[in-house]
Order: sequence, then C-alpha cells, then structure tokens
Amino acid sequence: MRFLVFAFTTALLAAGPKFNAKQELERPPDYRNWVYLTSGLGMAYGPAARESATPLFDNVFVEPNAHAEFLKTGHWPEGTMFVLELRRNVTGQSINKTGHSQGEIAAIEMSVKDKRYPDGWGYFGFRTGTTAAAFPQTESCYACHKANTATDNTFVQFYPTLLEVARAKGVLNAAYLVTEKK
Amino acid sequence: MRFLVFAFTTALLAAGPKFNAKQELERPPDYRNWVYLTSGLGMAYGPAARESATPLFDNVFVEPNAHAEFLKTGHWPEGTMFVLELRRNVTGQSINKTGHSQGEIAAIEMSVKDKRYPDGWGYFGFRTGTTAAAFPQTESCYACHKANTATDNTFVQFYPTLLEVARAKGVLNAAYLVTEKK
Repeated sequence: MRFLVFAFTTALLAAGPKFNAKQELERPPDYRNWVYLTSGLGMAYGPAARESATPLFDNVFVEPNAHAEFLKTGHWPEGTMFVLELRRNVTGQSINKTGHSQGEIAAIEMSVKDKRYPDGWGYFGFRTGTTAAAFPQTESCYACHKANTATDNTFVQFYPTLLEVARAKGVLNAAYLVTEKK
Repeated sequence: MRFLVFAFTTALLAAGPKFNAKQELERPPDYRNWVYLTSGLGMAYGPAARESATPLFDNVFVEPNAHAEFLKTGHWPEGTMFVLELRRNVTGQSINKTGHSQGEIAAIEMSVKDKRYPDGWGYFGFRTGTTAAAFPQTESCYACHKANTATDNTFVQFYPTLLEVARAKGVLNAAYLVTEKK
C-alpha cells in the first residue's frame, strides 16, 4: 500500500513546466525528487574562468519522465526540465576533517526545452523568488549551451549515467566528439 | 499515460533489501532512481584523517519509501536502505576550467536498517561484485555511525533537506546537539 501511495504521489508531481501569465517559469517544488544526474564543485567555464575563493557545489536533477524518454530514445522531449541547484561549500562540518560537504542553497537555475525559445531551450535563474523570466537571449548561457554541449543543448558529457546512453543512441554532436579525441 | 507507466515502474522498483542464501546483500540495480540526499568531495573522518591526493566524490541516495516515512515521522523504517556511491574526481573535463566533476564509480557502499545486526544497522561494501556480506562488527563503520550520527545511525547532519526535518521531529541525538553548539 505504501508503494502505491508513493507511486501515486510521484505520478501527480511529475509534470511539464508551468508558466504564469507573464511567461515566467514557476520553480518546481518537488525537483529534489527528480532523477539526480551529477554534482560538481567549483566548476567554471570559458577562457576567463578563474578558481573561485568560494566555490559552490552544483547538483543537477532532471524531471523523471523526460529522463525515461532519453534512456529510451536519446532525445529530450518537449517540456524537459533540468534544475541546477547551487549549494554552499562547507568545510570542517561535524566529524568531517578534510574535504567538502554541502550547505545552504545559493541559487537555483533551470533549463526548459520549449519551442517558444529560439534555440528550443530557455534558461532561468531563481534567487529568492519562485518564478523567473527566461534570461535574455544575449546572456552567455544560450551561446555556451549551443556550442559546447554534447547533445541537444545539454551537458551530457558531465552526466556519467547518460553519456554512454547518448553514445549508444548516436546522438552525440560531431563537434563534441572532436573534443573527446583531443 | 507516460505518468502512469513511470509511476508503475517506480512502484515495482521500490522495495526492501534483498539477501541471498549466504545472507549477502544484493546491490539494488535502481539506486540512482532513489531520492538523492547530498554529495561531498574528499570527506574523511577521525583524528587520523588526512587530505587525500585523490579525493573522491560521494553521492548519497535513500530508498524512496523510507525517505517518505522519515519525512512523516522522523524515523527510518525497518528495511531502510542507503547507498553511498563513490566516484572519481575529474578535473579539466570538457569546458570545465576549474573545479571538479564526476567520473567513474570507485566503490558502492550501503547501510541497511535490519534487526539481524546488533545495532540495528548493517554496513556493506561492493567493489566489482553485485553482492556483499555485511562488514564484520569490528569494522569502524559500526562504532563511528553509533557515536557520531545525528539520528539513528544516519549522518543526517550532512543531508541539508533532512536535518531540519529531524530537528522539527525532535529526533536529533543529545550528543549530536552538543556538538552543534561548539
């Protein structure tokens, strides 16, 4: 019975992106129950990237139905949602003598596959609010995702469980495959 | 319909620990679909802890029905399963110029709440195999979990989404609460 209740709850929660009348994306309340893809610490990109004095953890989650579709086909369906949860890096917590554990949320960012955006994906940053307008097309996220992702504007090269799925399905970009050989 | 299929799959996969005739635990094939709790990098404990030259990421997952029960009651039900997935730390991957991303699995460890073990929890390490006998009671995991966890042999102090749940439910150990004040 507990299984059925859990299954029913999951079914209710899993859904596509919700936009309000101002075309702002609503932050999904349940993203921590989505499929976890990976975490990094202090990741930074581009020629100007410098080591941060206060590196953040990033945790990546994808909506479960979209994940199931990608496993099956290698393609992200319309409405796919990713959450990038940024958390403070904590050292010396409790009995941890070395290394890094996770603290409070610093920011929540999202990407959504939706035809309303020119490249088919919109990018969003939530700070304290629960809704966010898509970043302007001039923001670097659009060009960087388009140029550097392994498949369909998604950084599958950083998701250990999905990279080989994408390879098997033959959906890795030619430009990405060239960088793998370097 | 896709929602129903996902819900049904989740219901089928969520289950208690499976032991073989030799009392070895079987590694759950689906733990990456469980609830993600946190990640750390290079965490090490105890007076002898030293910074590792090859720190590992650790990703923690808990079986979803047990997670739902903890949210409701603050207690882990009999049969609760945790997975600690250790992954290689990768630097300089793809466009990542600084910081750390995750590579191959280095080891998978588990804890299971089960009355067959003296403290009510067993600890397991899988290397290449899919089954593992519980570590002997002389291994440090037993004493360390008993002495240093915030509640019921679980390191809830490192799980940002659960620590305040445990506090609200009044289940944090007195010994742990003392360390918080230091």
